[in-house]
Amino acid sequence: MPGATVNAIPTRARILYASAELFRRQGYAATGLKQIAAESEATLGSVYHFFPGGKQQLADEVLRVGGRFFLALYETIAAGAVDLVSAVRDFFDGAGQTLLATGFADACPIATVAGEIASTNEVLRAAVADTFESWLDALAEDAVEAGIEADRARALALSVLALLEGAFLLSRSLRSLEPMRSCADSAVALVSAALADSREASRR
Amino acid sequence: MPGATVNAIPTRARILYASAELFRRQGYAATGLKQIAAESEATLGSVYHFFPGGKQQLADEVLRVGGRFFLALYETIAAGAVDLVSAVRDFFDGAGQTLLATGFADACPIATVAGEIASTNEVLRAAVADTFESWLDALAEDAVEAGIEADRARALALSVLALLEGAFLLSRSLRSLEPMRSCADSAVALVSAALADSREASRR
Repeated sequence: MPGATVNAIPTRARILYASAELFRRQGYAATGLKQIAAESEATLGSVYHFFPGGKQQLADEVLRVGGRFFLALYETIAAGAVDLVSAVRDFFDGAGQTLLATGFADACPIATVAGEIASTNEVLRAAVADTFESWLDALAEDAVEAGIEADRARALALSVLALLEGAFLLSRSLRSLEPMRSCADSAVALVSAALADSREASRR
Repeated sequence: MPGATVNAIPTRARILYASAELFRRQGYAATGLKQIAAESEATLGSVYHFFPGGKQQLADEVLRVGGRFFLALYETIAAGAVDLVSAVRDFFDGAGQTLLATGFADACPIATVAGEIASTNEVLRAAVADTFESWLDALAEDAVEAGIEADRARALALSVLALLEGAFLLSRSLRSLEPMRSCADSAVALVSAALADSREASRR
């Protein structure tokens, strides 16, 4: 193939992957297009060729693609779990293992950028909001399928996601899995209480 | 007083206050010393005079001072509450009101910077960790005083703080108080369950 790169991964994908890693570890503002080019072994010209909108376009795509990847990860774990409690427990366990394996660097694919841009960049805030909503929908749907009433399922999804995001921030900051473990226990307790209430209501 | 400024607030305090606002709203990397000088109506020379260590020294102090302020806020609210459940409920309510009053801009004084620097700046990560630990200690102490056993109190404090931090991120991102309200209910449920268990254990 004329002009094909020796590297098997297409340039555009390498740029996206390198951007995702840099945004997640050090944030949006600290990451420059030159560093993205260097980390993805692409030229700056290539970066602009594939992403003419520059850093904001790249971040928008990273937030959405990273969000779909994280959603697929949850769906895979949930599909392999015996019930909702196990799905939530397994997802928190996996998050803890990933933190440990990466020296507490790799956490949520969107949280670092989300915190930086929530008040300053409406395009990226919308990408973050869409991504969070897609996760909340998936979790709430599973809760409804497990018998939890829709409003309660939405509230439960919000709390479980908040516990996960809070645990990522605390575990990264304290360099300890203790927050992730405590939050896993609390998420499981909240899910169990909601399931018990729904069984109670169905008996009435 | 010779050389006194017309502005009643001392220059050093104005610089710290402006830095705290900028770091909290837009993050560490996006904030430059020139913007800090402009926002605090000080010269760049003043900023370097009071903070010879530059932006890192400023951020270190902002994280620690902002952390003590947030702790004092919690202690004031807790002192005025009839019990631990009300203290937690009131603190989440206050957080929601602040978000609403500031157009979802003003949230935790340290979270945005914490997410950015956890993997890239060990000095600032240590300041963040000390601050989070001071909040966790205060909350766990109140839980112990309310009769909850020490290990359970620590785990409870971690979960309540994670819910608050997660709620800040979700409410800012979705521009809605719904996450903060759901997380307040969940924090109250976790505190209530721990209190019920401790009463149960003391009856045995």
